Amino acid sequence: MPYRAPLTEYRFLLDHVVGFDQVAAMPLFADATPDTVGAVLGEAAKMCEGVLAPLQRVGDQHPARLENGGVRTPPGFADGYRAIVDGGWVSICASPEFGGMGLPMALTSAVNEMIGSACLSLQLNPLMTQGQIEALDHHASDAIKALYIPKLISGEWCGTMNLTEAQAGSDVGALRTKAEDNGDGTYAVSGQKIYISWGDNDFTSNVCHLVLARLPGGGPGTKGISLFMVPKFIPDAQGNAGLRNTLSVVSLEHKMGLHGSPTAVMQYDRATGWLIGEAHKGMAAMFTMMNNARLGVGVQGVSAAEGAYQHALAYAMGRKQGQTPMPGNDAITGHADVRRMLATMKAEVFSARALALACAVAIDMARATDAPEWHARAALLVPINKAFGTDTGIAVADMSIQVHGGMGFIEEAGAAQYLRDVRVTAIYEGTNGIQAMDLVGRKMMDNGEAAFRLIEEIQTNAHGVRAQYPNMATAVWNAAESLREATEGLVAQNMNDRFAGAVAYQRAFGRILGSHYHLCAAMAELGAAGVDGPRTALARVAIKRLLPEHAALLAQVREGAAGLYALSDADLLA
Amino acid sequence: MPYRAPLTEYRFLLDHVVGFDQVAAMPLFADATPDTVGAVLGEAAKMCEGVLAPLQRVGDQHPARLENGGVRTPPGFADGYRAIVDGGWVSICASPEFGGMGLPMALTSAVNEMIGSACLSLQLNPLMTQGQIEALDHHASDAIKALYIPKLISGEWCGTMNLTEAQAGSDVGALRTKAEDNGDGTYAVSGQKIYISWGDNDFTSNVCHLVLARLPGGGPGTKGISLFMVPKFIPDAQGNAGLRNTLSVVSLEHKMGLHGSPTAVMQYDRATGWLIGEAHKGMAAMFTMMNNARLGVGVQGVSAAEGAYQHALAYAMGRKQGQTPMPGNDAITGHADVRRMLATMKAEVFSARALALACAVAIDMARATDAPEWHARAALLVPINKAFGTDTGIAVADMSIQVHGGMGFIEEAGAAQYLRDVRVTAIYEGTNGIQAMDLVGRKMMDNGEAAFRLIEEIQTNAHGVRAQYPNMATAVWNAAESLREATEGLVAQNMNDRFAGAVAYQRAFGRILGSHYHLCAAMAELGAAGVDGPRTALARVAIKRLLPEHAALLAQVREGAAGLYALSDADLLA
Repeated sequence: MPYRAPLTEYRFLLDHVVGFDQVAAMPLFADATPDTVGAVLGEAAKMCEGVLAPLQRVGDQHPARLENGGVRTPPGFADGYRAIVDGGWVSICASPEFGGMGLPMALTSAVNEMIGSACLSLQLNPLMTQGQIEALDHHASDAIKALYIPKLISGEWCGTMNLTEAQAGSDVGALRTKAEDNGDGTYAVSGQKIYISWGDNDFTSNVCHLVLARLPGGGPGTKGISLFMVPKFIPDAQGNAGLRNTLSVVSLEHKMGLHGSPTAVMQYDRATGWLIGEAHKGMAAMFTMMNNARLGVGVQGVSAAEGAYQHALAYAMGRKQGQTPMPGNDAITGHADVRRMLATMKAEVFSARALALACAVAIDMARATDAPEWHARAALLVPINKAFGTDTGIAVADMSIQVHGGMGFIEEAGAAQYLRDVRVTAIYEGTNGIQAMDLVGRKMMDNGEAAFRLIEEIQTNAHGVRAQYPNMATAVWNAAESLREATEGLVAQNMNDRFAGAVAYQRAFGRILGSHYHLCAAMAELGAAGVDGPRTALARVAIKRLLPEHAALLAQVREGAAGLYALSDADLLA
Repeated sequence: MPYRAPLTEYRFLLDHVVGFDQVAAMPLFADATPDTVGAVLGEAAKMCEGVLAPLQRVGDQHPARLENGGVRTPPGFADGYRAIVDGGWVSICASPEFGGMGLPMALTSAVNEMIGSACLSLQLNPLMTQGQIEALDHHASDAIKALYIPKLISGEWCGTMNLTEAQAGSDVGALRTKAEDNGDGTYAVSGQKIYISWGDNDFTSNVCHLVLARLPGGGPGTKGISLFMVPKFIPDAQGNAGLRNTLSVVSLEHKMGLHGSPTAVMQYDRATGWLIGEAHKGMAAMFTMMNNARLGVGVQGVSAAEGAYQHALAYAMGRKQGQTPMPGNDAITGHADVRRMLATMKAEVFSARALALACAVAIDMARATDAPEWHARAALLVPINKAFGTDTGIAVADMSIQVHGGMGFIEEAGAAQYLRDVRVTAIYEGTNGIQAMDLVGRKMMDNGEAAFRLIEEIQTNAHGVRAQYPNMATAVWNAAESLREATEGLVAQNMNDRFAGAVAYQRAFGRILGSHYHLCAAMAELGAAGVDGPRTALARVAIKRLLPEHAALLAQVREGAAGLYALSDADLLA
């Protein structure tokens, strides 16, 4: 599965579309000079192309497995992991205080995308660690920080998140894992957790589990939950992995895809843990971690989309079937319907990537400025990006199968794996339905203010380019206007009516934002070259062929919930 | 994987929606009395629920494999096959002259759907045989018919289709397999064929391959292709399987899904074959077979959609997560977004099934009346049904995964298998892109006449129910009007512009037809009960939430090809 890192795309998006110049201008990110950005992207690309891409198929064909209570990872994954940590890619955005590079999340996202395109199942490991570093940095005591973060940054240890239990998935408040105070600064954690990504491995000397559990005296639901660090090996006095903790991997799941990543059922039997943050306030700490993890998962969608697109294009350029209307081009890329699929895939990858980077920029600006507007922007974009990125990953991987024709269904061709791997990204880290409920619920507690501000920006931009691109600018402006009206309608709805249209609203928002970024790209190209070029052509595909979908989606937003509940459960069964 | 056959649905659709009464009134189908229809559906349902459904997972977990040159099928498949042939389900629509039931294709489709829901990978075997019986009945000599058809009907032998070669997929005219006249009424067939579904098995005493090959003197492309019957064992003087023919299974593919069905690479080394139909006119014979096979594959999409829907609904009704707004219902079916998915799935299954049965009715009426209008209707509906049915199968299976949440990604839950299995249906028997090119190309050689006639019927019906359902009727009428305008535009376009919008046009047509059938269902319910009921509620979901998609699709139809070719291959690579 050869892979070529889209370095030119990142540079173009950072320089011209997603406003990275604002980030680079912040004192906090003074190190993010153009040279550093170029070096970081270039080095990461080299590793992804050379070291990681060959592991993609290996991970699928040699799934992680459980042997004598420990996880055995696919051949080569240990070396791949070593390359990732040696490059410093786990810790690009981690604090320099503990050995991190302190670079912006926007750069981290670009690098994460490349690693995920090259080998998604392995990339999930450092992604979890990045989230854990973030959570510890914000909520852990100084002693815990000093002990764990450097080892996580060096990659000697890695991190996991333990939220889900059999009866507590989307409803995390239903969890039953218990913690008791041992009276010596530690806690005894007992319970079973499921779906623990990279719950164990054979290439780090410790695995650090962040576990949600209930302390006595906590309230019901999410209010009574606390967060604990429960390492596989208890650090000794020198801070090295010491005694084995009383936790174990019960089993690994047999999954549709992402076979290289071990998904564990974890058992904790009075395992020794340390409280992170305040008692009963574990959810707040977890949310810090989840916001960035959700961006990370949206980026995984982009990873898979880019990989699947490259794979489909390479196949199509080498496959001849019948005569095409393009003189001198007998590859199937010359056929209109194949070209439609490829152009659509490319346009969608652009949109999803721009959304992810814009979300990362907002997170960076929120951190650098602490301005409420940037916090609100980041909070708004996280669910939209998570859903749009992962939906795009799935849709583009599915189209890649179709471009391959019969070969798409044959595992040896590799196209199917992208779909099997990426499918989970719409589910984990909060299903895309949960993201949508977050978007129309919590993220609209400002009565849509953050949304209206962003819509206004889209319209201002479109208005500004109406002379150059009258049709495209009008289409984007009108779509944004429909979104504004839909948002007004949404915030006037009761919560369940909002929920009934939430996924459609989320998707429409992503669709319109993607078109906006395409329009920005076209303008940047025109500004630089003085004439229309391929970015403008791609923007036309996005705006004329894909944007019209927003109207159908917004119609669903207006429908509310009544029509759905007009069907009883018995009617659904009939 | 429990399965409950939707008998009430079939009866309702046949009696009230798809015009089966016209079929039953034909002398040719005098046997299709309400009692017979009821008995056929009831008996098939019993077998599917009791015997076949338990094989669904078995086929996935124990793929067909190659042993000593022969295919070993999954455990239990031989018994399942025996149940299918003993029930007479291979030959429902085959001619009574050879032992078939001579019943309408509409009934066959309903039965095929049930068998496919219960075990899709096994169902593909009799589906291929049905196509072969049809091809032989139309094109073979009397001697070949008398020899093969009774054995195919009894299930003693089964049939396959051999079209594809490595360099000849969508472009079947590029095939290289050769045939030479042996001078004794037989031919020597040599070449390699790929993607041969059920190329071999261990439960029939012969496997009858219909093979496309070139005789000397044929023209280039599809005009020089002839069709041959090449059996695994050459029939002896008594018509029993005799000497082994010189053909072999080279290998089986390792596929994304449909593991129970062996997909073979077949090698023919001067294998003995018999010419079917005229020399150089093999494509015509193959097209007879393909039309019905395409209906059959569209029905496979419905099969998977129904199975995936039932599976998701059962899971959702048993899964509790958080409080729902429905008093007394703590299952996740009470959550608006889960309910949206379930209602959408049910509405889509209805649409796809109605389309498939309407297509079957048109085929039946064409056969019974030989009226050009019915032939044209059938020809128009075949690609629309093939694409809409299979796209629905994929979309509903995908949604079923989402309803399952984390469990959707775990193979043990069974949800993923539906998607992995059904994915190929959008590819084989002509990709959905090829279907779309057929629709806007060959099927519009009448300048859209057949399409306009169908659109007129949709509008007449909508107009007739505007008093009862003003909003829904208007929505359907307007959508049909947009389709009429798009069709006018389409037939004025050059062929490559048509191709650029072909998939979108095909999907819009299916979408609007589905809404039309929903409206018919609502009216039938109102007529019978005097009040709105669940079918009307479901129609509202379809028409208010799903139908608006047609506008975005038709916008793509108007775009033409230029925008796609504005991107060069180099631009796609950049």
